[in-house]
Amino acid sequence: MPDAKHAAAILAAQAAPRGKPTNYPEPFASRMRGREKRPLGDVFGLTNFGVNLTRLAPGAMSALRHAHSKQDEFVYILEGHPTLVTDAGETALAPGMCAGFKAGTGDGHQLVNRSAQDVVYLEVGDRTPGDQGTYPDDDLQAALGPDGKWRFTHKDGRPY
Amino acid sequence: MPDAKHAAAILAAQAAPRGKPTNYPEPFASRMRGREKRPLGDVFGLTNFGVNLTRLAPGAMSALRHAHSKQDEFVYILEGHPTLVTDAGETALAPGMCAGFKAGTGDGHQLVNRSAQDVVYLEVGDRTPGDQGTYPDDDLQAALGPDGKWRFTHKDGRPY
Repeated sequence: MPDAKHAAAILAAQAAPRGKPTNYPEPFASRMRGREKRPLGDVFGLTNFGVNLTRLAPGAMSALRHAHSKQDEFVYILEGHPTLVTDAGETALAPGMCAGFKAGTGDGHQLVNRSAQDVVYLEVGDRTPGDQGTYPDDDLQAALGPDGKWRFTHKDGRPY
Repeated sequence: MPDAKHAAAILAAQAAPRGKPTNYPEPFASRMRGREKRPLGDVFGLTNFGVNLTRLAPGAMSALRHAHSKQDEFVYILEGHPTLVTDAGETALAPGMCAGFKAGTGDGHQLVNRSAQDVVYLEVGDRTPGDQGTYPDDDLQAALGPDGKWRFTHKDGRPY
């Protein structure tokens, strides 16, 4: 039956920002300054995938450059001009452009806002169990636990 | 390893339209006139979920009003003013608005373009096996086969 708790539709920019800005441990958490994520799928009770409306202030980044073992990801640029960084190099993005990151390629990706204006984009990722994150540029690795929470360690397995 | 077949990013509006405009049998297929879907996730080899850039000409609809048993769905309006129709009634949408449809609620949904201008939106849906589609307003039901293709029948099981 319809769930009366959920609005039929919302203005995405009015969704509440995520309570905890980042799951990364320090010293990585501080590098996420200027990034604001508004979970949109959660507003409607979606669980199979997540959708965020994410804003990057000048100088901010989407995430550490990373790759997922099982989660596909997709981004669609709504405002501004971020730079997409992958193993292949850098690609200038603009509103109306999109990119997808297939799980399991090992090719790390991130968006960086090197412009003087905010960047706003939609990001989509599924929630396949057993997902792992790898970080080619940082001493970090991540594993998605059965409770749906990420666990971060050094690459040699030591906890942060 | 990175897959050289895929571009790093594309302009979504330049993605190729879906070859087969609709999977519905007649008389439903003809009702999808004026709807054009550009698969975006496929461009990047994504398989866990699909993303389409969909354009509705004046008078066109997103789909027959329907509900999924296992697939979550999400839409984000980029241009124009579609009307969202659900069991609760009608909701006027506008650019920057979004809506999500949790699997299993049984609440059928569709977007209808009753305006004089085109509507453009992003739609996301996962590909959970065993999904079924129900159509409250039409003599139609759908089942996702193990081959990833939809099979449509009358509500009493007779094939179209």
